[in-house]
Amino acid sequence: MSDATTRPPEAAKRGRPRLDELTATDVEGIPALETIIGYRLRRAQLYVFQDFIESFTRMKLRPAEFSVLSVMARRPGLKQTEIAEELGIKRANFVALMDSLERRGLAERRKADTDKRSHSLHLTPEGVRFVRKMMAVWTAHEERLVEKLGGPKERDRLIELLDRVVARD
Amino acid sequence: MSDATTRPPEAAKRGRPRLDELTATDVEGIPALETIIGYRLRRAQLYVFQDFIESFTRMKLRPAEFSVLSVMARRPGLKQTEIAEELGIKRANFVALMDSLERRGLAERRKADTDKRSHSLHLTPEGVRFVRKMMAVWTAHEERLVEKLGGPKERDRLIELLDRVVARD
Repeated sequence: MSDATTRPPEAAKRGRPRLDELTATDVEGIPALETIIGYRLRRAQLYVFQDFIESFTRMKLRPAEFSVLSVMARRPGLKQTEIAEELGIKRANFVALMDSLERRGLAERRKADTDKRSHSLHLTPEGVRFVRKMMAVWTAHEERLVEKLGGPKERDRLIELLDRVVARD
Repeated sequence: MSDATTRPPEAAKRGRPRLDELTATDVEGIPALETIIGYRLRRAQLYVFQDFIESFTRMKLRPAEFSVLSVMARRPGLKQTEIAEELGIKRANFVALMDSLERRGLAERRKADTDKRSHSLHLTPEGVRFVRKMMAVWTAHEERLVEKLGGPKERDRLIELLDRVVARD
């Protein structure tokens, strides 16, 4: 309430805007982060991944590994390149991920019948048992999220909106 | 169509399930990735960040830097720890990010009046000019996304659903 705080800034007194100071109009044009689509998607994704990682602490499973094991379980025999591309995982990262699953005895690369240069991916018997436990843990995690959203209809609505975001122009 | 492919697996013939093979029921219980909330959030977030990064190729700006500059513009003088916590950025990552913004001459740390040990963050005059350009580029990026979603109402609906995801239980 002192003169110092109520006095208008120098630029306003002189009647010409300074280019190196933000005006009230500039500041009004800067959105709160809470309204920014990318920022909100990132925060929600981090929240869900954190919950996922905590759910899988004992099984030591990360979201990308879950995705790869799910695809191998549903469609055994796909090639490395096919799964990597479908999941949007870079080749080098995918190789490291498969190396890790092989070391843990959960998955294996087999020479593909049709193309000796590429490998098809399969669960091992231990991988099959792991996937059964994984699905039980995952179901509890996902059900919590669906409940937070308000139910399966709201989940479907969210996924429909996310479809629109990634749709090709 | 040969006998080899139509013959039931050994386990089914013997009438007891094998624990190291997935049954049809197991496989039915494994969700398609397209229906998984975390997977869909991640894909949408990567899409939006990729579009952001392409929009800002010339200005060499990453999403986290955009967030920090926005907060400094709207609320100059916040402390490092306050901004880092608000944005959910780890301390070490935040320090590296601020170092980079300082090297580019866009922002500066000033000793806080109230606590000599902490720093308050401010845009430099060059940072102010940068933020004005940044907002113009960002607005075009965000408008494309809102259009893809179907308009501001759908954007608000998406953000409301994301609110629910991250809400405390």
